[in-house]
Formats: sequence, structure tokens, C-alpha cells
Amino acid sequence: MQKLSEQEIENKLKDLDGWTYAKKAIHTSFQFENFKEAFTVMTRIAFEAEAQQHHPNWGNVYNQLEISLSTHDADGVTEKDFKLARTIEDIIEASN
Amino acid sequence: MQKLSEQEIENKLKDLDGWTYAKKAIHTSFQFENFKEAFTVMTRIAFEAEAQQHHPNWGNVYNQLEISLSTHDADGVTEKDFKLARTIEDIIEASN
Repeated sequence: MQKLSEQEIENKLKDLDGWTYAKKAIHTSFQFENFKEAFTVMTRIAFEAEAQQHHPNWGNVYNQLEISLSTHDADGVTEKDFKLARTIEDIIEASN
Repeated sequence: MQKLSEQEIENKLKDLDGWTYAKKAIHTSFQFENFKEAFTVMTRIAFEAEAQQHHPNWGNVYNQLEISLSTHDADGVTEKDFKLARTIEDIIEASN
């Protein structure tokens, strides 16, 4: 999988809501009602990430979730990251 | 809940396996077989954390899990953190 150029990444970010590009990865963060809601969403994301065989770099504190996506093998951002990002957006949207 | 002194923390850390104290929190990290194993353990921890109403600051990348525990209200480490740390150790041990 070929890494995307910065221009390609910036273009694709326009189709997502609230993601940014920095340090060879795309990043976002979400805030939930509480820990249970945050971890419920994390669990849904975990199943989809596993199915895509592409996994997030993520951190959680109570109701906060931070996610970074990059493709290690490509040393940058690829279509795999945008696929997972769109899945994450769908999951978050469905949880609201 | 009163925060523990550095001496108390260092003493209590001796009863745990591989935890360190830094920046007003206790920290550890684990490596699993793969993402599924890591997230399975995270899920067990999440349920126990929720039951204890005390939650970790944690991050995951593929098979790696990093955990920091502190008590926000006490601005340091309390017995709550050691209780959750022991629970986490039990869960990890049971998963091996």
C-alpha cells in the first residue's frame, strides 16, 4: 500500500469531520458522556479494526478518546487509514 | 481519599510487578500476542475499572498496552490506584 502525498491527505481530510494531519499520521479526539460510553465505542472500533487488519494508536482517559492512524509499513498515511477513519466516524455517529 | 507519600508509594510498588512511579502516577506496560489479545485484556480491565469507579489513563498500539494510574482529585497516587493496579495484575496473570 503506497503512502499518500500531503496534498492527497489534505484533500481526503475534507471528507472527514475534525481530523488533522501531523507527524505522518491523521489524528482526532472525541469526548463521551462517561467511561462506559467511551469504552463501548472503543469496543465497536476494535472489532472493525481487527476485521480490517489495521489498528489505531489510541489513548483513553475517562470520557476522552484520542486516536491516531498511520500505516507503519508505508511510513505514512495510506488509504487503509482513511478507510478505518471513515469506519470510526460511522461508529461515533451511530453512537450519538 | 488522601494521596500517598513517595515513600509509601515506593513501598507499595514492591508488591507489584514492573510498575514505576513518575509524574504523580504509577505506570506499567504490557505486550500481548496481538491486538485481539490486548483488547480482550483491556475489556476485562475496563469492566473492573468501571466497577471500582476508578479509571486508567491508557494507550494501545497493536499488541502494546501502556497504563498510568493516578487519582485526579488527590493530585497524586492513592490506595484507589493500588487497588486497580492489583486488579490489573490479576487480570493479566489470568490471561497468560
